[in-house]
Amino acid sequence: MGMPLEMNTMIVTKGKEVRQQENFFQLIKDGYRLYPMHVPLEVRKTIEGELKGTAEIHRLEWRDQATIISYELKTLQSSN
Amino acid sequence: MGMPLEMNTMIVTKGKEVRQQENFFQLIKDGYRLYPMHVPLEVRKTIEGELKGTAEIHRLEWRDQATIISYELKTLQSSN
Amino acid sequence: MGMPLEMNTMIVTKGKEVRQQENFFQLIKDGYRLYPMHVPLEVRKTIEGELKGTAEIHRLEWRDQATIISYELKTLQSSN
Amino acid sequence: MGMPLEMNTMIVTKGKEVRQQENFFQLIKDGYRLYPMHVPLEVRKTIEGELKGTAEIHRLEWRDQATIISYELKTLQSSN
Repeated sequence: MGMPLEMNTMIVTKGKEVRQQENFFQLIKDGYRLYPMHVPLEVRKTIEGELKGTAEIHRLEWRDQATIISYELKTLQSSN
Repeated sequence: MGMPLEMNTMIVTKGKEVRQQENFFQLIKDGYRLYPMHVPLEVRKTIEGELKGTAEIHRLEWRDQATIISYELKTLQSSN
Repeated sequence: MGMPLEMNTMIVTKGKEVRQQENFFQLIKDGYRLYPMHVPLEVRKTIEGELKGTAEIHRLEWRDQATIISYELKTLQSSN
Repeated sequence: MGMPLEMNTMIVTKGKEVRQQENFFQLIKDGYRLYPMHVPLEVRKTIEGELKGTAEIHRLEWRDQATIISYELKTLQSSN
């Protein structure tokens, strides 16, 4: 009866992020999720995957049982 | 340091709601707020004001330290 | 991967509430749930059941994948 | 009118943690706060302070406008 939520502390892209411009991306996730806004969050492709960088979310939207986040990639992990 | 949130269980319009079409309204509130989605919520003009009706939120957006909700007025309180 | 939560806006007892003293009750619910604290909430035996009264939660605890709430029954619905 | 919450993603002790036994600590924070349960969180003495280690929260309690968390220190940062 209550409203299911998921509290997230990292951005897991599953490779589905869409670049809007430069370092700005949008990502759609299933269900209604809470993310901290305007703070650095780890970005990973999968939960157990390697760190890709850090990003800050500046917009979050709930609709149609999905969460849409817009974030700016702030630092990029060099991969070697 | 943490992210301030406000958990709301009713829609308080302060008369600032904007009608989009028929029974659909949009309302902007200060700060980041949690509202239950897709369930009947009481609508009041002020916290202590009289009940205006019930509505269900179908979209919620966080951006620029504000929360934008879109809701459908489902029942209207007759006022006499 | 995120932490599942459930946002609740009413107390549904399923008849499992335990009276502590006078109007004070404790109730254990599955999973981690959010309830508004210190505000009047409807109390029902089942989601669709009749209103039993209103109560205010003054303590909430999360442990072992359960939520324990302590509340005071403030008003009782007369049942006829 | 709504219920103020703070969403936290790290444990900031301000040196006020109380050891219960071995690696188990309890900490009282002002206000009602959300922390992810059962996942590794960074522990710092101050927000900007150095990383002390990681811990997992297994109990969280809201009462009297405060949040009490019980956590186990899982890894300790060597400090040199």
